[in-house]
Amino acid sequence: MQARLECNVPTAVKPCELACRLTMSFRDMGRPRPYAADGGEGSGGEELLEVCRRRHFVRGGAGPRPWRAYLCGCPPAFGPLGVALRANLAAQWWEAVAAFREQVFAVDAPLHGPAGPGAPPAAQALRLVPAEVPRRAPRGGEPRAEEALGAHGLSQELKTVAAKMNTRLCTGALAQYDSCLELVNKRLPYGLAQMGVCFHSIPEREQCSENLSRIGERTTSSLVWFSSPRTAGQWLDYWLRQRLQWWRKFAIGPSNFSSSDFQDEEGRKGFNLCYGFPWGKETIETLINLGDTELLQMYPEDRSKLLGRDGRKNVIPHVLSVSGNLDRGTLAYLFDSLQLVENPLMKKKNSQRKVLKLHPCLAPIKVALDVGKGPTPELRQVCQGLFNELSENRISVWPGYLETMQISLEQLYAKYDEMSVLFTVLITDVTLESGVVQLRSRDTTMKEMMHISRLKDFLTKYVTSAKNR
Amino acid sequence: MQARLECNVPTAVKPCELACRLTMSFRDMGRPRPYAADGGEGSGGEELLEVCRRRHFVRGGAGPRPWRAYLCGCPPAFGPLGVALRANLAAQWWEAVAAFREQVFAVDAPLHGPAGPGAPPAAQALRLVPAEVPRRAPRGGEPRAEEALGAHGLSQELKTVAAKMNTRLCTGALAQYDSCLELVNKRLPYGLAQMGVCFHSIPEREQCSENLSRIGERTTSSLVWFSSPRTAGQWLDYWLRQRLQWWRKFAIGPSNFSSSDFQDEEGRKGFNLCYGFPWGKETIETLINLGDTELLQMYPEDRSKLLGRDGRKNVIPHVLSVSGNLDRGTLAYLFDSLQLVENPLMKKKNSQRKVLKLHPCLAPIKVALDVGKGPTPELRQVCQGLFNELSENRISVWPGYLETMQISLEQLYAKYDEMSVLFTVLITDVTLESGVVQLRSRDTTMKEMMHISRLKDFLTKYVTSAKNR
Repeated sequence: MQARLECNVPTAVKPCELACRLTMSFRDMGRPRPYAADGGEGSGGEELLEVCRRRHFVRGGAGPRPWRAYLCGCPPAFGPLGVALRANLAAQWWEAVAAFREQVFAVDAPLHGPAGPGAPPAAQALRLVPAEVPRRAPRGGEPRAEEALGAHGLSQELKTVAAKMNTRLCTGALAQYDSCLELVNKRLPYGLAQMGVCFHSIPEREQCSENLSRIGERTTSSLVWFSSPRTAGQWLDYWLRQRLQWWRKFAIGPSNFSSSDFQDEEGRKGFNLCYGFPWGKETIETLINLGDTELLQMYPEDRSKLLGRDGRKNVIPHVLSVSGNLDRGTLAYLFDSLQLVENPLMKKKNSQRKVLKLHPCLAPIKVALDVGKGPTPELRQVCQGLFNELSENRISVWPGYLETMQISLEQLYAKYDEMSVLFTVLITDVTLESGVVQLRSRDTTMKEMMHISRLKDFLTKYVTSAKNR
Repeated sequence: MQARLECNVPTAVKPCELACRLTMSFRDMGRPRPYAADGGEGSGGEELLEVCRRRHFVRGGAGPRPWRAYLCGCPPAFGPLGVALRANLAAQWWEAVAAFREQVFAVDAPLHGPAGPGAPPAAQALRLVPAEVPRRAPRGGEPRAEEALGAHGLSQELKTVAAKMNTRLCTGALAQYDSCLELVNKRLPYGLAQMGVCFHSIPEREQCSENLSRIGERTTSSLVWFSSPRTAGQWLDYWLRQRLQWWRKFAIGPSNFSSSDFQDEEGRKGFNLCYGFPWGKETIETLINLGDTELLQMYPEDRSKLLGRDGRKNVIPHVLSVSGNLDRGTLAYLFDSLQLVENPLMKKKNSQRKVLKLHPCLAPIKVALDVGKGPTPELRQVCQGLFNELSENRISVWPGYLETMQISLEQLYAKYDEMSVLFTVLITDVTLESGVVQLRSRDTTMKEMMHISRLKDFLTKYVTSAKNR
């Protein structure tokens, strides 16, 4: 029986030792070839795209879709595994920016707002109109065409009922500045965090052929940080450092995440955080010091409402916006994680295994459960019990035991490596006899034996310790 | 010192005993008067609305906003505490519907789609158009007005670039039916789960005076369940039971959550789950058997793509849609949780304490940390250490120790009761000497002493055991 022959480590290894051993080799083993450095056929990312489609990280369209379509937020975007990966990234963002901080609150703003003042500049704006507009016949017969269409191609009537879609989350947070200032006793600095969808127009040159829509969507993480003008510069530097470290923490190639400063047309200072894709750098997060202009515009009637405390002084704060594109961030980690591993048994070119070595915190599936030799009903029952136990402990499990198609273990591991599954657990008749399962690691390809009762703690510790490294 | 005088239980109580004692009295103590049953001044919910605004569960508008404005999804909606409550509700939904099930996958669909076939009926549709439409002058001068405006009040040109906003999440899941069918080896039943924002037109009679927008938003939970036509009826009953039990599980008055069946205009069978607000029942979730019509419409070219396995047969599945409005659900639990507790010391009417007894799993803040008598810098340091420890263990903490305004302990407890904070921990000079803190329960108002090292386990167990009851 293959599973039994492959075990090469005595069962006496403690989970923590094993974790340590497997952990040490996370980046070093298997002689990987980093994908992004490959200047050959992979430079456009076609190989990765094929893996990501096959394993449901991204969705295919009617025709072939280039990476650009995913980058510019042109739907469809992510499949179930990509959605889970992005959700893990979002959870990590939330922990780093909001959950562990005394002075950050979660807010929520509607995706659309009235098309009035305070709305973003018209060039980027998207209007939302009900399909059935009340049709009041104007007096004196038909309206003239230019009257009907208005200055921007919309009738006056439509303009009244139209709303604008959010192109950034920051505006919604600014509108909650004064009410949330109460929550912190008017003490600066404090922050408002939000995660949501933003809309944008896709430039004509970037439109994907199969989709006529000019409108893109992106999952946005937003922290709006209100601080005394005196310390705004220091805070911008703080958040720049914090955010860049955060992106690098989950990367195999941290140096592909970089920052560059800019000044916008109004002279406001900011930073772009970029990822170096094979075709060039793309912005994944933007930090900018907005000053107090927008806040003053939003509360024109009463400036005293804006005053926050900086020590003993009362000041109108400066606003820092830290806004990330989590869809692009997800794509960046897919590129970061792909490694082509030579198969030592076969030297041919097409024998390369493709492994997505996503960081343990980000991998959408931590463990796959599969059955080997033995009585199927009993083995399945063990699997189902384990599925429940691990799920309840927030460990995401792939129920491989439900698969009825027979494939070899090597094919199974190759599939799970492409799915970025951290560990594969094999339940066999040995498990029924002694409670021991075989555990195979994605990163080391090593197989170890472990008692089933230790799995939960081992996996929890493995992910936790990866996070704290 | 008040804190020390108030302790009335020896420190030898074990956390589990204490949890049990406090738990037993969750629904019984304090002689509460359920709010929803109050036919007096509270029947329109004004008292609750005042508490919810004061404690940042909901946001106020420019003028007074009635409950109806929140119910119909007319922004602004929730403040930070409401956002956190809804996030907890969403997490519970995810656990109940997706995380612990082998055959449910998370999907994501764009909030807008092309305004073509497969889109929802025009009456409910909302169109998204770029504010700046390319203005091509038609040949032969000005277009005629009816041409410019088109059949539904939109010019032909606008129609080309326009997209439709989602009014339900189900459509997006249907589009992923075939690709996700692969993931389950074509085996039915399986489900696709999603959480997202949907848009709807607000009927004119329900429009809120201060907001001219006719467009509402709602946070929607969606499970689309594909099952063999043979078992679709049983599955509908299963999900009805499951969903109703779920809503009731977190309620103080479970009987206010009820179901009623309906048939839509096309004769499709479904159920509405409702909550009994003081002014009447409102739908919070809808289950419907959509049959196979929409699936067949979406995949007109190749029916064989639709075939899933039901045992040994290949069948085109029936589609069950289970779609919840989490914004309304959040409001329902706010109504469910408010209790007016007589203050035994004062018999006057306005001495009633208002307590939001949200279920421990849903309460946005599990514990508040405050300092009593003692050296402030040292006490704060203890608080900050405790804040970090608890936050890292996913226990949400209110940093009351940052508050500089002096109020009495009674006022503090009253405030936290309105914020639905489960426990208040008081750190004093006793803590510095012996490591003992005072723990005050929202539900029992009892105060106990506990060693600081036990807090984390006590709070974790308290919330977990409340969930499993």
